[in-house]
Amino acid sequence: MEDFFIKSGDCGEQLEGVRYPDSVEPYYLSVGEEVSVFEQCHQRSLAVMLKGPTGCGKTRFVEHMAWRLKRPLVVISCHDDLSAADLVGRFLIHHNGTVWQDGPLTRAVRLGAICYLDEVVEARADAVVVIHPLTDYRRVLPIDKTGELIEAAPGFQLVVSYNPGYQHVSKDLKPSTRQRFVALDFDFPPPEREAEIIIHESGAERAVVHDLVGLAGRIRGLANRGLAEVPSPRLLVATARLIANGITPQLACYVGLVSPLTDDPGLTAAMRDLVDAIMVE
Amino acid sequence: MEDFFIKSGDCGEQLEGVRYPDSVEPYYLSVGEEVSVFEQCHQRSLAVMLKGPTGCGKTRFVEHMAWRLKRPLVVISCHDDLSAADLVGRFLIHHNGTVWQDGPLTRAVRLGAICYLDEVVEARADAVVVIHPLTDYRRVLPIDKTGELIEAAPGFQLVVSYNPGYQHVSKDLKPSTRQRFVALDFDFPPPEREAEIIIHESGAERAVVHDLVGLAGRIRGLANRGLAEVPSPRLLVATARLIANGITPQLACYVGLVSPLTDDPGLTAAMRDLVDAIMVE
Amino acid sequence: MEDFFIKSGDCGEQLEGVRYPDSVEPYYLSVGEEVSVFEQCHQRSLAVMLKGPTGCGKTRFVEHMAWRLKRPLVVISCHDDLSAADLVGRFLIHHNGTVWQDGPLTRAVRLGAICYLDEVVEARADAVVVIHPLTDYRRVLPIDKTGELIEAAPGFQLVVSYNPGYQHVSKDLKPSTRQRFVALDFDFPPPEREAEIIIHESGAERAVVHDLVGLAGRIRGLANRGLAEVPSPRLLVATARLIANGITPQLACYVGLVSPLTDDPGLTAAMRDLVDAIMVE
Amino acid sequence: MEDFFIKSGDCGEQLEGVRYPDSVEPYYLSVGEEVSVFEQCHQRSLAVMLKGPTGCGKTRFVEHMAWRLKRPLVVISCHDDLSAADLVGRFLIHHNGTVWQDGPLTRAVRLGAICYLDEVVEARADAVVVIHPLTDYRRVLPIDKTGELIEAAPGFQLVVSYNPGYQHVSKDLKPSTRQRFVALDFDFPPPEREAEIIIHESGAERAVVHDLVGLAGRIRGLANRGLAEVPSPRLLVATARLIANGITPQLACYVGLVSPLTDDPGLTAAMRDLVDAIMVE
Amino acid sequence: MEDFFIKSGDCGEQLEGVRYPDSVEPYYLSVGEEVSVFEQCHQRSLAVMLKGPTGCGKTRFVEHMAWRLKRPLVVISCHDDLSAADLVGRFLIHHNGTVWQDGPLTRAVRLGAICYLDEVVEARADAVVVIHPLTDYRRVLPIDKTGELIEAAPGFQLVVSYNPGYQHVSKDLKPSTRQRFVALDFDFPPPEREAEIIIHESGAERAVVHDLVGLAGRIRGLANRGLAEVPSPRLLVATARLIANGITPQLACYVGLVSPLTDDPGLTAAMRDLVDAIMVE
Amino acid sequence: MEDFFIKSGDCGEQLEGVRYPDSVEPYYLSVGEEVSVFEQCHQRSLAVMLKGPTGCGKTRFVEHMAWRLKRPLVVISCHDDLSAADLVGRFLIHHNGTVWQDGPLTRAVRLGAICYLDEVVEARADAVVVIHPLTDYRRVLPIDKTGELIEAAPGFQLVVSYNPGYQHVSKDLKPSTRQRFVALDFDFPPPEREAEIIIHESGAERAVVHDLVGLAGRIRGLANRGLAEVPSPRLLVATARLIANGITPQLACYVGLVSPLTDDPGLTAAMRDLVDAIMVE
Repeated sequence: MEDFFIKSGDCGEQLEGVRYPDSVEPYYLSVGEEVSVFEQCHQRSLAVMLKGPTGCGKTRFVEHMAWRLKRPLVVISCHDDLSAADLVGRFLIHHNGTVWQDGPLTRAVRLGAICYLDEVVEARADAVVVIHPLTDYRRVLPIDKTGELIEAAPGFQLVVSYNPGYQHVSKDLKPSTRQRFVALDFDFPPPEREAEIIIHESGAERAVVHDLVGLAGRIRGLANRGLAEVPSPRLLVATARLIANGITPQLACYVGLVSPLTDDPGLTAAMRDLVDAIMVE
Repeated sequence: MEDFFIKSGDCGEQLEGVRYPDSVEPYYLSVGEEVSVFEQCHQRSLAVMLKGPTGCGKTRFVEHMAWRLKRPLVVISCHDDLSAADLVGRFLIHHNGTVWQDGPLTRAVRLGAICYLDEVVEARADAVVVIHPLTDYRRVLPIDKTGELIEAAPGFQLVVSYNPGYQHVSKDLKPSTRQRFVALDFDFPPPEREAEIIIHESGAERAVVHDLVGLAGRIRGLANRGLAEVPSPRLLVATARLIANGITPQLACYVGLVSPLTDDPGLTAAMRDLVDAIMVE
Repeated sequence: MEDFFIKSGDCGEQLEGVRYPDSVEPYYLSVGEEVSVFEQCHQRSLAVMLKGPTGCGKTRFVEHMAWRLKRPLVVISCHDDLSAADLVGRFLIHHNGTVWQDGPLTRAVRLGAICYLDEVVEARADAVVVIHPLTDYRRVLPIDKTGELIEAAPGFQLVVSYNPGYQHVSKDLKPSTRQRFVALDFDFPPPEREAEIIIHESGAERAVVHDLVGLAGRIRGLANRGLAEVPSPRLLVATARLIANGITPQLACYVGLVSPLTDDPGLTAAMRDLVDAIMVE
Repeated sequence: MEDFFIKSGDCGEQLEGVRYPDSVEPYYLSVGEEVSVFEQCHQRSLAVMLKGPTGCGKTRFVEHMAWRLKRPLVVISCHDDLSAADLVGRFLIHHNGTVWQDGPLTRAVRLGAICYLDEVVEARADAVVVIHPLTDYRRVLPIDKTGELIEAAPGFQLVVSYNPGYQHVSKDLKPSTRQRFVALDFDFPPPEREAEIIIHESGAERAVVHDLVGLAGRIRGLANRGLAEVPSPRLLVATARLIANGITPQLACYVGLVSPLTDDPGLTAAMRDLVDAIMVE
Repeated sequence: MEDFFIKSGDCGEQLEGVRYPDSVEPYYLSVGEEVSVFEQCHQRSLAVMLKGPTGCGKTRFVEHMAWRLKRPLVVISCHDDLSAADLVGRFLIHHNGTVWQDGPLTRAVRLGAICYLDEVVEARADAVVVIHPLTDYRRVLPIDKTGELIEAAPGFQLVVSYNPGYQHVSKDLKPSTRQRFVALDFDFPPPEREAEIIIHESGAERAVVHDLVGLAGRIRGLANRGLAEVPSPRLLVATARLIANGITPQLACYVGLVSPLTDDPGLTAAMRDLVDAIMVE
Repeated sequence: MEDFFIKSGDCGEQLEGVRYPDSVEPYYLSVGEEVSVFEQCHQRSLAVMLKGPTGCGKTRFVEHMAWRLKRPLVVISCHDDLSAADLVGRFLIHHNGTVWQDGPLTRAVRLGAICYLDEVVEARADAVVVIHPLTDYRRVLPIDKTGELIEAAPGFQLVVSYNPGYQHVSKDLKPSTRQRFVALDFDFPPPEREAEIIIHESGAERAVVHDLVGLAGRIRGLANRGLAEVPSPRLLVATARLIANGITPQLACYVGLVSPLTDDPGLTAAMRDLVDAIMVE
């Protein structure tokens, strides 16, 4: 499943850094009305914010929707140092002067792609503001450095993700930015569905996956005892892969679940006790 | 209505990044004397500050006035990293040496355009100071890097927007800057007028829009209970578009109104209760 | 009166960014001995600091003195990011190597101009220190980057402005800088003189200007009730221009005086009450 | 043992900065299941985090695994100023324009190497985020500056090290980063094994190494009395080498163990007392 | 007296930015043994630190000593942004590649000049450290960027000034820097000598200068009442020049002494009272 | 004694910035086992840290050891802005593209020199981390910017100095860095030996040097009364040189010992009293 999207290098004709929908549907298990709401937002040119915890499938959902809507997809991981220039583009010095090079956002705007800003709250202020005129009735991207004003091609849609659990005091989306999005709430899937996903992704046995999901439920109950973040489905998939490869369930849970989650000796001991109690072979 | 202004690319002769007035009047519903005051300011070369909350129509008003006064319009979204050079211009390296390139403010000054600095308080100090000599009797733009002193062309007018609700301690306009503007106060339109705008922009039914405006009034009443910002007309338009596209009013309000406004579980529950009570189908 | 100084572009022969005295005397109403003290400072090569609140005519005074002394004038608006290089000059990359370009201060030093640093306290530390050797018996400008040591041409004089009301803890002139200037105190003009200035600049009727000056006096009395800065003559001129253009005095005062001064609802109400009481038509 | 890996310069054909597995097995004494877990992670393309104190053999373990798995190895020491560009690459100016140069991470991705980020928590936020898409099912490295999207070659695996004792408040891995790794815990080896390692690396006598390990145990017991970090096996090897070279055990322990660990006079005295008591000749 | 040193531009053969001793002795009134101590330091290659308040003649003393010792003089005003590169030099881009350009310190080292760093404590840490190897027995300047190690020419001597009254918590010379200098203490001259200097520099009458020095003594007595810095001889000279030019002594003291020293209304009133009492015509 | 090392410029064949051992032994009086421990560290490729106060001879010791071991020596003064690029090298732009230029550390690594980082704790984090792979069994210097991995030439040894009295909270060596060094403790020499050094370096009379060392002992006793740092041998040598040149011992101690050490009036008076009591002629 790792390769359901064509990647750059495979096809000389396509723009680099942009993924085009493949013939195979990306695996995604819908848990509510998110698919139909997203489709209507796309039709009415409304920007979308995906709210939810780490590893609950937001990126996968965007890839699924890009496939379903037959739109190219541009993914940008935001971080502390992501500036407007990183999104919009910059001048490069060539031997015959400077040449403008589009950034990934500009490529998406010209192409009519879905542009996904992952963890948008991490980006710098200038990067966040640059998306404003793309998210209201104007649908334009002004490029100050060249004086160009690009009208978004039909099909362009802005999607951002946002983890409400990470609201730092110093880092939050401004209300004037938030009000530019329709917001879809994501959460961990219910147990049976989570088990189904894990089996699909890891190839582990149903019985041990059942235990694993039960264990995850117990560990998630420790959230109010100091655990910074509860285990995501992604972590359970990694653990299940190790088990499927022959590592004992107990050891797999130690290295795949417990140790990545905390350095605290007390929490480690409590989680190891849960593992020992539940993951008996 | 998205295209009442000609955009760059459509007309080779015009300057890039500048919008020229179109033959179609941009939709704007006046709520007071703002149009006539703005016209007199334009005639007496007075700079104007638009004060008011997010999404209440300040940008639309400027576009309307540019159309009415038959002036080109330059829009600049301000942010933390916007520097004087971003406004005024910079040297680019070409194969035969450096070439000066005007920034958007300089283009507006030479052209006699209306220059709109959106959320001016976000810009860096050097960017704010650069507008000072343009806002008093001098009407000049000194470009330190080239030693040029540009006299503003007739018709040039500076307009800034400012959201009083955002006054950070560390970020406020200096009094010596504020005193350079005539200030127009904007607020949300009264209910009937807001409904009219939403119907015009979304194509939703009058009855459901009436409910939506009533709901917005109730949610705006929660401002003193911790809501960082109340829902703007922009948010109501987005919600009404989803309803017009067949999403149920309840779900449309959840994703279009409630979730964008807050991450707080208590506030979310309170707002969802209001939605359930008011948006019955 | 906006054009009593020749601006760049009008005369190909002159240096750009420098204003040369015009044949028309710039309007300035002297309120004390500031003209004669400035003339003696000019004759004895003493630098001058103009102390006083926003919009009380310091810039106009410098322009008047430049006209009176028949010296070219270079005006530099200082800000947070103004560095020594912005004042002194920098190397530009040309197709045949780097070329030194004088900054505005260097141009003034070579030319024997009056160099006016507006709001000098805002500039960066390196920019402030660069003026030290120009303000004592040495009268030289060392340019570290080129190794040049420029002796100021006869007639060169440094003038800075400074608003004592703005003393931030983190931003103040060092005593070793202050002691390099003769300081002239400026304040708002007395009522009759202020009225005269407003009539001259706005073309409004004497009666309504009289009311306006009375209103300003009352608002200035609110300074100790939380108003960050009291209305300057500049603000009164803007308001009077709107009245002269047919806006009602009440509305003109709302948008021209009250709203630019504060966002505080209580202060706004108090000032509007004063407007309603005094500016009856 | 210093040269069991071929280094750049020795073989013109190979990429610079990348080590290729040598025919001699690097010395590594396994203390648990770390080798087999690492092998399964490698097979299932799971990223690995090595958790443990300074100098306990994490780097050596990665070199051992690269040898065992027959994969090239790229080692990157992280620090405060390590940026995404340092990992991914940058444009260099050549006489015929700019040329892109891959960074060490990009080289590893193209080559299918094991890429080891030592002390990953020290790197800048943008550097940490850049590894995200390489650690989930996507296994891609997007290069924003060129618009390229590189799919990791088979065999590529990301390994990071992390010292839980160093958690600064301001510097910790984000939970969304931690959940991308399977975590292996490392600690100091048990005494007999530690002695074996020291003898192998220093050539010192078994008896004095036995005393040295005993001394280390006692000093490690001082951790809760203010010692910032307890002596690592690396420090014991250095001390043993001095002894093997003829420095007296007492003096060797003073300069090789006590003085590097603290500047505190009280702790120094306490440790010297332990040395005097245990390291009798 | 302003031109007792030949300045750049006057003599094509000499290095720019360096002053060569003139035939006229610069005016300097010795107040202690500073001249002979400085001479012995020069002979034994010891660096010298001049400690004392603003405007008490430190710069003039250095110029006097350069004249007396027949050494060229390089003066560098230090500030917050002064970096090692500003002192040592940098690469400039020329049309045929980069060319190294010596900074002022490097010029002084090669030339055997006296190099005077005014207000050294203001410079950046890297700039301060760069002088270390020049101030001990090594007398070398390593230039990291070129790999050059320059031995100071005979006659080179480093002199720094330092105002003990300015010790910020965050800005002080490191003890390891201080211990590299012999320190000479400077203070205001005694009254008769100060009067003599003022008469020499201003051309004012002896009687009024006598009053002025008396006034200065009284104002200096206010130091413990909140005055950030007491009036320097430089300020008295400026005031005396205005008086010599015909400004009344009272007004001259208001603008030349009181207003430059403080913005505090209470201190201003107290000083004006002293002026009114002492400077009767 | 200033020139016992050949400096760059003297010998065209040698690398610039590197000192080669001279035929004359540099003066160094050993006070313990530091010479033999250093020799064994050199033989076993162990990095060495010299711990001790300002001016106690650490730099001289390194020069002595380089002479004794017949190794070239590279000295680097660390400071706040010293970055990895300053140590390792950078690309310079030449007329035919960019050319890599080795930094001083890289030169030392290729040459097999002793590389001495003076006050290493002052350097930036990236500069400190860059030395890690040179201080363990790897002995390699990876150059990220070129992708080169340089194996240290035989004889290369890293030496750092560190003043424990300067431990700022915000600036300390990380334990993971400290554990990479064998540490040698330095202190002021005992009185007779200190006198011997001073006589050798200053040429002053034995009697007055005896008094001077006695005075230093008394002043060092004031350390716990607020003196930031006690007088180093370097300061005593400077003072003794002034005395040898004919300055009276009292005045020499005022300017050479007391004034460089403090600005505090109380401490100054206390030290002057000690001078007056001890340094009677």
